[in-house]
Amino acid sequence: MSKFTLALVAGASACVGAATTAAIYGIGGRRQQETQTVTTTTTTLSKDPSRTIPPPPVAIRRDDPGVPAVPPVDPNGVFQYGFPGPVADLRAAPSLTSSFDRARRNPHWVAEHITPASLLLRNGDRRHSYFAEDHTIPEKFRAKLLDYARSGYDRGHQVPAADAKWSQEAMDSTFALSNMCPQVGDGFNRDYWAHFEDFCRRLTSFYPSVRIVTGPLYLPKRDAIDGKWKVSYEVIGHPPNVAVPTHFYKVIFAEDGNAGGNVSLGAFVLPNDIIPNDKPLQDFEVPIEAVERASGLEFAGLLPPARTKRLCKEIACSVIVKEYAERQRTMMSPPPTKGLPPATTMTKR
Amino acid sequence: MSKFTLALVAGASACVGAATTAAIYGIGGRRQQETQTVTTTTTTLSKDPSRTIPPPPVAIRRDDPGVPAVPPVDPNGVFQYGFPGPVADLRAAPSLTSSFDRARRNPHWVAEHITPASLLLRNGDRRHSYFAEDHTIPEKFRAKLLDYARSGYDRGHQVPAADAKWSQEAMDSTFALSNMCPQVGDGFNRDYWAHFEDFCRRLTSFYPSVRIVTGPLYLPKRDAIDGKWKVSYEVIGHPPNVAVPTHFYKVIFAEDGNAGGNVSLGAFVLPNDIIPNDKPLQDFEVPIEAVERASGLEFAGLLPPARTKRLCKEIACSVIVKEYAERQRTMMSPPPTKGLPPATTMTKR
Repeated sequence: MSKFTLALVAGASACVGAATTAAIYGIGGRRQQETQTVTTTTTTLSKDPSRTIPPPPVAIRRDDPGVPAVPPVDPNGVFQYGFPGPVADLRAAPSLTSSFDRARRNPHWVAEHITPASLLLRNGDRRHSYFAEDHTIPEKFRAKLLDYARSGYDRGHQVPAADAKWSQEAMDSTFALSNMCPQVGDGFNRDYWAHFEDFCRRLTSFYPSVRIVTGPLYLPKRDAIDGKWKVSYEVIGHPPNVAVPTHFYKVIFAEDGNAGGNVSLGAFVLPNDIIPNDKPLQDFEVPIEAVERASGLEFAGLLPPARTKRLCKEIACSVIVKEYAERQRTMMSPPPTKGLPPATTMTKR
Repeated sequence: MSKFTLALVAGASACVGAATTAAIYGIGGRRQQETQTVTTTTTTLSKDPSRTIPPPPVAIRRDDPGVPAVPPVDPNGVFQYGFPGPVADLRAAPSLTSSFDRARRNPHWVAEHITPASLLLRNGDRRHSYFAEDHTIPEKFRAKLLDYARSGYDRGHQVPAADAKWSQEAMDSTFALSNMCPQVGDGFNRDYWAHFEDFCRRLTSFYPSVRIVTGPLYLPKRDAIDGKWKVSYEVIGHPPNVAVPTHFYKVIFAEDGNAGGNVSLGAFVLPNDIIPNDKPLQDFEVPIEAVERASGLEFAGLLPPARTKRLCKEIACSVIVKEYAERQRTMMSPPPTKGLPPATTMTKR
């Protein structure tokens, strides 16, 4: 996987739920490109505009009386008025840890952990939880309840409430808007995305410990008219405040339960759009590096390749469709008698 | 200024160089809004969908045998595989300090400092400087020289080379791509934006120390067809890699030279587009809070209001148009005899 340069771009027909395309460029082809003459529109005064490789560093002539021994300026002095940031608003809650994107008012990422035991506990009830603004984030950078009102988008949990039933406090902590992004409701948040979240929970039938990092993406798409790559997303609120992501990712670490043991890794990118229920989940699997390039984040740099397995090679990566109404009934029904979740819902390869 | 909620949005006719609009909402009006019934499309199971204010916190029933005394999960455990970031790639160079946006491959901000004395030194010559990729940034998040090739955009300095003539090393350090954004060339980078940079330098005729923070913005614009606010920007490179900002900001701190003295503050937002030379610079002045909301950054939180003055009340905020060819000639001519820059080019109010 490290032999490739990867870029995530939106599929041409993303609006009908088609998969994100992972454009894969062999390094060989890229190297060849790099030897081409580069002619750019630029303001450089270089006599040779094709020259872009810097020359060997030239020692500063400290003996020249014109060159100051002490720099005449102090670029860091402006920090006396405040350091610009960005501040990532790390939030450690019972059910999740997250980092917030102050420019787009969505999380950068939200990390969670589920186990067979944590999912069996049923002390939290979402009827007692309420969506709430995250007051740990300064007012001017915060997502507001009003931003979502009449926007047409769901307040879409990044860590699902259903993963945090082990206590009411844990469940409540998933209802902060810093754990939300605007998501398409019918056909996505209430359907395919929910089935995908269910898939993640079912992984605990095979793995004693499952860690998931979830977050938004803003991917470029090729313009049909001028052929240029463009990122385009709505911003909801009056005045506009919260960005509507074009896609969402989940990076899944399914652990074998042994210290220093194997980790089955899966990365998925889904468009924030209606996805037909019969679309195979595996169509949305991408190399983890593609999520990293698209998000500017890194997820598994410290995980040795020798310990890494590919999740979708070990188990069947597919969703089970439960209708929304049925799922809501199940969620509202009393807790089941204790026991392992049915393992028959997932196939071991 | 603190009495208002501010949002930066792109003007309807930004493509012809029209100014960014600072939408100003009185808090009074906003409060009224907040008392309205909120009906949202949401998956909450609350019996009363209009209720969005969280109830008083309920103590966890620790005496309930179903509630674990020790949380059954550890959301931070995933960091054993690497902390996702974001990493801001702080760079401290002789002529600038910057922070890099790994998702959009542009700086978040670049800070510089100029003084009458620093601008008089002429040891650096841009003919000896070369554009260079910033190898301190991991390859997968870096802006590449090839991304700009044939893109139609200039490699636009955020800290201008002309502000760093005091040593060749200082000038060279402005040529790293982490100090660049794709900028429209003719009519912007080579014209109005260059005149604006010249305005900043001329400030040293009145202020003994001038600090400037410069960076890109990606502002929403109201869609003429559906009335929705949308952010839309091109991404250059093959595969697409570097975002083309819709706007650029400069936050200027003009200091009176006394420790704890007065600071004249000016914030400007210009569209990354052709701007007619006769457009008044003051049309682009915005409240600093508007730049903060748009960028997710904070610039002057530690500057006491009692020390703050408004730059454009003290001096005439206007550009002087020098044609590109003439400017290039001036830049390439030998250094002038030492002396203060001509004060006649700027008017004291």
